[in-house]
Order: sequence, then structure tokens, then C-alpha cells
Amino acid sequence: MKQEFTQAEGGVCAAIGFSANGLNCGLNPDKNKNDLALIYSEAVCKAAAVYTTNKVKGAPILVTKKNLAATGNLAKAVIANSKNANTCNADGEEKARMMCELAAKELGIAPEEVIVASTGVIGQILPIEPIASHVKELAEGLSAENHGKAANAVMTTDTFPKEVAVSFELDGKKCTIGGMAKGSGMIHPNMATTLNFVTTDVAISAELIQKALSEIVKVTYNCLSIDGDTSTNDMVSIMANGLAGNKEITEEGADYELFRDGLYEVLMQMTKMLAKDGEGASKMLECTCAGAPDQDTAIIVAKSVIRSPLFKCAMFGEDANWGRILCAIGYAEADFDISQVEVSLESAKGTIKVCEHGAGVEFSEEKAKEVLGEDEIYINIDLHQGEASAKAWGCDLTYDYVKINGDYRS
Amino acid sequence: MKQEFTQAEGGVCAAIGFSANGLNCGLNPDKNKNDLALIYSEAVCKAAAVYTTNKVKGAPILVTKKNLAATGNLAKAVIANSKNANTCNADGEEKARMMCELAAKELGIAPEEVIVASTGVIGQILPIEPIASHVKELAEGLSAENHGKAANAVMTTDTFPKEVAVSFELDGKKCTIGGMAKGSGMIHPNMATTLNFVTTDVAISAELIQKALSEIVKVTYNCLSIDGDTSTNDMVSIMANGLAGNKEITEEGADYELFRDGLYEVLMQMTKMLAKDGEGASKMLECTCAGAPDQDTAIIVAKSVIRSPLFKCAMFGEDANWGRILCAIGYAEADFDISQVEVSLESAKGTIKVCEHGAGVEFSEEKAKEVLGEDEIYINIDLHQGEASAKAWGCDLTYDYVKINGDYRS
Repeated sequence: MKQEFTQAEGGVCAAIGFSANGLNCGLNPDKNKNDLALIYSEAVCKAAAVYTTNKVKGAPILVTKKNLAATGNLAKAVIANSKNANTCNADGEEKARMMCELAAKELGIAPEEVIVASTGVIGQILPIEPIASHVKELAEGLSAENHGKAANAVMTTDTFPKEVAVSFELDGKKCTIGGMAKGSGMIHPNMATTLNFVTTDVAISAELIQKALSEIVKVTYNCLSIDGDTSTNDMVSIMANGLAGNKEITEEGADYELFRDGLYEVLMQMTKMLAKDGEGASKMLECTCAGAPDQDTAIIVAKSVIRSPLFKCAMFGEDANWGRILCAIGYAEADFDISQVEVSLESAKGTIKVCEHGAGVEFSEEKAKEVLGEDEIYINIDLHQGEASAKAWGCDLTYDYVKINGDYRS
Repeated sequence: MKQEFTQAEGGVCAAIGFSANGLNCGLNPDKNKNDLALIYSEAVCKAAAVYTTNKVKGAPILVTKKNLAATGNLAKAVIANSKNANTCNADGEEKARMMCELAAKELGIAPEEVIVASTGVIGQILPIEPIASHVKELAEGLSAENHGKAANAVMTTDTFPKEVAVSFELDGKKCTIGGMAKGSGMIHPNMATTLNFVTTDVAISAELIQKALSEIVKVTYNCLSIDGDTSTNDMVSIMANGLAGNKEITEEGADYELFRDGLYEVLMQMTKMLAKDGEGASKMLECTCAGAPDQDTAIIVAKSVIRSPLFKCAMFGEDANWGRILCAIGYAEADFDISQVEVSLESAKGTIKVCEHGAGVEFSEEKAKEVLGEDEIYINIDLHQGEASAKAWGCDLTYDYVKINGDYRS
């Protein structure tokens, strides 16, 4: 079905006309860890974003929303910091606006053309001085090669940077969509997730870019759960500068669908990276629910399993305790018949069927141990009552998750 | 408001006319751990129960429902086993019925007068022989003194048995309500919880006992979350044999309210015990949400905080990371204004206010460490937008939770 996409290098700078940079400005006492990122497009971009549904919203989200409203969804840059979420602070919006102003001044653009994001501890006043004193150096170092420095700057407890890019042909032109993300914990996205910055050189209208983003986020980021906690600062933004030279996509059709498929590829790969690097994770879990009466049911069932702490512990223990999968399917808030359910567990080492018609089937415990010993585990559920399917991603629950989050103000 | 209740001894046998017993029949290889319990009332009881909302329902639940329907909500006995949930098995209902028949035969009653319950691993065939060969010994040992043996028999990963009883005066007669429960993990009750058996000598109609049970479960067990996993075998049953001699309660009014308050006292104390003994728990957490526009909002907010894995880890780390509390309040699915929220943390060592008007306030980290060093922590939230309040209970998330549930088929 989906056209082949070519993996590309360069993350958030893979598309034409984008540059980036990252450095340590002093918010993070570890001088080897960047904490401030800048992304810049030489041409003005159509922009779209989706945000957390948490009632507690980080101040940067409020400012970004206002900026995009003021420009009619146009943007030229992103400034983002880690180590401090700038959330639940009385002066939060003022500080977020100052970040936009500082970046805009160095770039010679309007403050409203800047998307701003913060991640880190909630409820600590954001010191602006470290940012103010480093923004010049940050802007001067902008280059297409520095995408990795920017990706490093948004990491919190992430153990590796997340960068993805794919290329494809549209209207005879080579087009690219790339992105970077921070992940790790407080991840149970709801209409958005974590911090994700996507860039593309595709020419597309602001309406359609928002539509594609919303559609794809529903079946990628929103199907990811690390710990069931929906963050206050979740945001996915996308900027399209049109420099690929394709005829602007202004209506639904084959071109739009190709763009949307490319966006799915990028966000799905990013989602899997986030799952793999969930806080304390030792295994990436991908749950597919097929045979569902409709897609929403498939999503709800797959997410219910991925979220279950008991199932996540069993995966950490490499125990084929399928009763916990059935239990999590059973409490999923959707309407379906549990008596037809079939479940199998799969990895590079093979597949074992553990449940049929809602009841257990005999399987080799030895084979199960071997299958579950791998780093990537696939849980395949078939409800046998329809044609719809969906995937959800997550990770196991480990000692390290508790250690990381029991430590002082991580 | 609430009348004073006197704590009583004897758990599930505290009320007049009840006897119990427990023993090891061999389902559990540890001969020092009981795995089979019997509760008996010398007089027929009005009975009521609430059950899990999980679509996967343990076979014993299906059989208990049918039995109560067949007798018109009358019962004389309970038989329960641990170590095997008798759930997701093709022969589950047949085995559950056999358990009722075995108990009924020894007690000289009808099989439909028996409430049956199982807890343990899901999806393993229940061997009936160990039960069949021990039910005679079990019935012969029934006595009011053996309540502890029965409470021991329903324990799974519980570290202590849960028994509560209170006495009060009604219609000039001494009345008692007592109960026993098993808890530990897979606890996120929804209209019911875990296995809970309540007995009373109060005379009350079947309709009103069901009404009181449903009302009280909503504000006690249903406000408990150990790990967010709703079990397949949850059940709370209550049996009232009327031997206290009070005039039967057949309508709402002062007598009904007193009975309901007594039931609240028993179930609330049991809920706190379950929270304290949550799998791997080192701290009991009680979250009160006051100042809510209505009780449902208060319940949703308090449960959202109690369920948050990040908050639970912070409590394990004794870290006053109140941003995680605000985050969990923020994603609670209820309609309220976040900007008025006030939060304080309390224990036997004192109280610290950490948040006011939805933003942080300065507090002594030293004092916070001292407050959070205690075993029982109270999180007090005031939404400042109404008069309603509710409590929720839970525990911290620890290395031991992961260990217990990562171990093979616990």
C-alpha cells in the first residue's frame, strides 16, 4: 500500500533550507550536555502543532499558540530548552516570550515567528540570563550539520538522541521530512506528546499540514505510553518551507496522501525510538490489535495492554503471563466480545500462540522464554470481529524506571 | 457527623452467628500458607455483591451471580481459594460450580446458597481434587475463632491478613459488621475490588443492603489504586443474617444511614489496609481533594494523583516533587479551573504547603524531607471552587513492585 520511503540523514535539517544548533548555556550543570536548541528555516514556513490536553499547560505552549495565531500559522524558527519546563510559574509566559524575543533579535525576524518549547522540572522559576547570554553564540553556530547538537539539547533522561528523516518524490521533486524528539518519561500522549519538531521542504497549505499532523499523531504518538502520565509540556510542531519546489498541495488527493504517508513514516519511527528509550526500559513493546470492529476500538485495546504495569513487569521478567494481557484487554473501555480473542507473542526468535477463543492454549514455556528474551517484543491480538487494526508502542517496567523517578527532582 | 463506632475483634466472624475456617489443601506448595477458606452463617443471610467491570470475568463471579439470582439474594456460605484465579479456562464455570457443590454437601445446604471466589494466576486449569479431598476437614473445623485462618487463605502476595470489624447500637441492639479481604496487586477497582467478604448480624432487606454496598464501595474501594490494573476476579460480597435482633431495616432513614456509616467505616479501614500493603509498597498514600464543584470531580482528581506512576516514584524517593501532583491533577478527566488549586503534603511530622493558585510557593526542602520520611503521607488538594470532597488511597511505586511482578507467574 504505502510507497517506499528512503531513509535520509540530517534529522531536523534533512529538508532543504533548515539549519540548527545546540549548546550548554548553564541551565544544566553538566557542561557536556546541551540544554538550549535553535532550529531555523531560511524561508518562511507554513506551521502546525498539536498540544497536550493536560489542563496544566506549560507557559511555552500558551505562547506558541498565541504566536501561531498572530502570524496565521507561519513560523521561521524554534527555540527550546531542557532542564526546566517553565510550567506552573507566575512569570512563565513572560519568560517564554523573552525566549522568542531573544531568538528573533539574533535572527532578524519577528518574535511571533518563533515556536518556543521547554522541558524539565515543573514549578521552578526559569532563569533567563543563561539563555540571554548564549543566544548570540547559538544563532551564529546555525548550520545544517548541527542537527545533532540541537537533538542533544532537548534530551532529558533520554539515553540517546532521537532523529529521523525520510525522502520521497512528489511532483517530480525530491522531498524530505525530518524531525527530532525528546522522550523518556511522563509519556502517555493525548492529542500530542513530548517535544517533537518536524521540518519539511514540501510545499503544502497550512490547513492540510495541520490536518495531516492531527491524523498521523492519532495513530503514532497518541498510541505510545511509557508510564501513563500525560505531560504538561507535550507538543508536536511541524514547519514546511516549500523549498523542495513541488506544486503546493492545497487539496486532498494523491499528493496529500503521499505527504501524509511520509509523515506517518517519520512519526512512527520516532514513536518506536521513544518507546525503546522509555525511562528505564530494557525492551521495546509493540502491540497490534487486529480484527477490530473499528479503528478506535483497536487503538483503545492496544493502548490498554501497552499501559498495564503488570504486563510491563511480566515482559521485564520475560514471563509469558498472558493472563495479564487478557486482563488488560478486558478492562479496555470499548465495546467488543472477549470470547473470540486470540493472542500471540512474537520476536526475532519466533512466535508463540498463548490464547484462542479467550482461553489459554498449551505452549512450550521453553520456547516462550526464548521468544521473550529478545529486545523487541510484538504482542499480536486478533479480536476476530472486524477488519480494523491499530498499533501501540511502549516498554517494560523495570527497576531503573523506579530508580530514575525516585531520585531527587529528576 | 458520623456516630462513633467501636472497633471489634474477630474479622469476618465478629458478627453473631458466623464461623469460618482456612487450611492448605495443596494448591499452594507452601504448606504453611492456607489456600482454601470457608465462611458460614448459621442463619440464612440477605446477600449483596458488586463485581469487576472487566470484560474478562473470573468463572467464580459468573457462578456467584447466577447463585444469588437463583436464591433471590440469599446465601449461607462462602468458599474461596487462592493461588489459581480459575479465569480464562474452558472448564471454569464447571469447576466453580463443583466448589459450591462440595461446600454445600458438607454444610447440608443448597449449592446456590454458596458464594464462590478464586484469586491467583489467570489461565491455569483449577485442579478440583485438592479441594474435594479437604472440604470435609475444612467444614468440620468451622468456628468463630478461625477467622484468621480464613483471612490467611485468601492472601496472595499480601504481606499481612486484612481483617476489620466495628460494633454499634441500632434499635437498642448491639450490631456488628466485620470483614476480610485480599489485596496487593492488580488493584484499580471499578465498581468492585479484589476479594472482600463482609458479614453482619444486622437485619436489613436485600434491596437496602445492595444499595448501601454500592454507595460505600464508590467512595472506598473504588477510590483505591495500587497499579491501575483492574482485576478479572474483583468482588465484594456482604451477608447479613439478622441475628442482632434489630427490627429489620426496610426503608431509608436514620437506621439505614447508621448501617451505611458502619459499612463505610469497615470498608474504608479495609481500603487503607489494602493501600498500605500494596505490592512492594513502603508508604500508604491518602489523597484528599476538597473544594470541588461536585463529588465525582473530587473522586476523579484524587484518583488521578494516586494513580500517577511518576508521583508514586517521587513518594518512594521522599521527594516533594509537587509538579507531578499538579500534572496529574491537570490530566484528570473532569471540568474545573486549575488556577485556584492549592496543595499541601502532610504526615505525622507536620504539613508543608507546596502550591497555591496553581503555582509553586517557597518551602523548606529540609522540612519536606522530614514530612515525607514517614510511612503514611497525606496529600491535601483544595480546588477552591465548591464544597464537595473525596479521598483516594494508594501506595508508592518501588523496586519491590517490579521485582514481585517481574518474577515468574506471581
